[in-house]
Amino acid sequence: MDFSSKLLENAVYEMSQLPGIGKRTALRLVLHLLKQPERQTENLSNALTKLRTMVQFCKKCHNISDTVLCEICSNPKRDASLVCVVEDIRDVMAIENTGQYRGLYHVLGGKISPIEGMGPQDLTIYSLINKVKEGEVQELILALSSTMEGDTTNFYIFKQLEGTGVKTSTIARGIAVGDELEYADEVTLGRSILNRIPFEGSFSNK
Amino acid sequence: MDFSSKLLENAVYEMSQLPGIGKRTALRLVLHLLKQPERQTENLSNALTKLRTMVQFCKKCHNISDTVLCEICSNPKRDASLVCVVEDIRDVMAIENTGQYRGLYHVLGGKISPIEGMGPQDLTIYSLINKVKEGEVQELILALSSTMEGDTTNFYIFKQLEGTGVKTSTIARGIAVGDELEYADEVTLGRSILNRIPFEGSFSNK
Repeated sequence: MDFSSKLLENAVYEMSQLPGIGKRTALRLVLHLLKQPERQTENLSNALTKLRTMVQFCKKCHNISDTVLCEICSNPKRDASLVCVVEDIRDVMAIENTGQYRGLYHVLGGKISPIEGMGPQDLTIYSLINKVKEGEVQELILALSSTMEGDTTNFYIFKQLEGTGVKTSTIARGIAVGDELEYADEVTLGRSILNRIPFEGSFSNK
Repeated sequence: MDFSSKLLENAVYEMSQLPGIGKRTALRLVLHLLKQPERQTENLSNALTKLRTMVQFCKKCHNISDTVLCEICSNPKRDASLVCVVEDIRDVMAIENTGQYRGLYHVLGGKISPIEGMGPQDLTIYSLINKVKEGEVQELILALSSTMEGDTTNFYIFKQLEGTGVKTSTIARGIAVGDELEYADEVTLGRSILNRIPFEGSFSNK
């Protein structure tokens, strides 16, 4: 793409560094900003810079937070003996939205993935192990995505915790509510039969 | 969506003001920036702010430019008697990419659209009329999109230029190269037959 202005070219280049944003989309976004009041671009730039420079992570669960301890960790009504291990802060938001969970979280910041050069030391796994060894945690819910990387990470954590006596569980895999059986993949359907639950229990929604 | 941090919420909000970017995508983009070196966010913010505050438009064709006259308008090799009227600077880039056009451009900055509150005074139409009245322009190619707004704008410009003696033309509408006839819409196919061209002429690609 040939640009008529270096300033434009530079803005489009930086915008296209974002994931899923190609050069054409970047150009569309940048031209949109040019048509809006200067204020909007200023607000966007300031919000991004402020977030990037002032961002803090909760000391306990590594969730993004404006305070040393996040709102969830510092809430005395939450069950501190139950910790849900997730990959990303988006997972925390998704689980919080269900309104079903009253324990705490632990944000790993990714999964073990040798291909992407992510080892246990790049994640917050050791902080999790220490937290468990301190003794307050009684159950760990491993809620990583069920990919090879997720399974590897689950297994690594499980192995590291051997002997601590902490209970580990994983979220139920099965057919999504509203889905039709005939379209489900074999692995999920197979697991949902192996891990079937008593019918009376399937309504509990407290 | 409930955010664990005001800074994050603000950044996501500003990002989601961009067209086609919803809250979820905005969150994904912002979290991506958090995982990258601070430098990247800084570069993006600076590039956007710089563009927005320092942007200039070519005095002659209204294309984005770092100089008073853009590279195309100030190029003596281009044919100044031929002006292609387009909506947007993206159209200039698209036509330039074909390598087929040696004239100048005129960027309108939009189309006449009463619904969106865009009248002729919001576009660069009067600057175009003045340019034509100065006498250098001999042919005007109207290359707006063929929507109702595009047609209205074309007709408005055409009416304003009555009596100036300038030749006006419009880009050919027809079946795209490589397309199959059976999938073409009736209007396009009908027009492509009415406006058929001599077979020998159809290869010219100089």
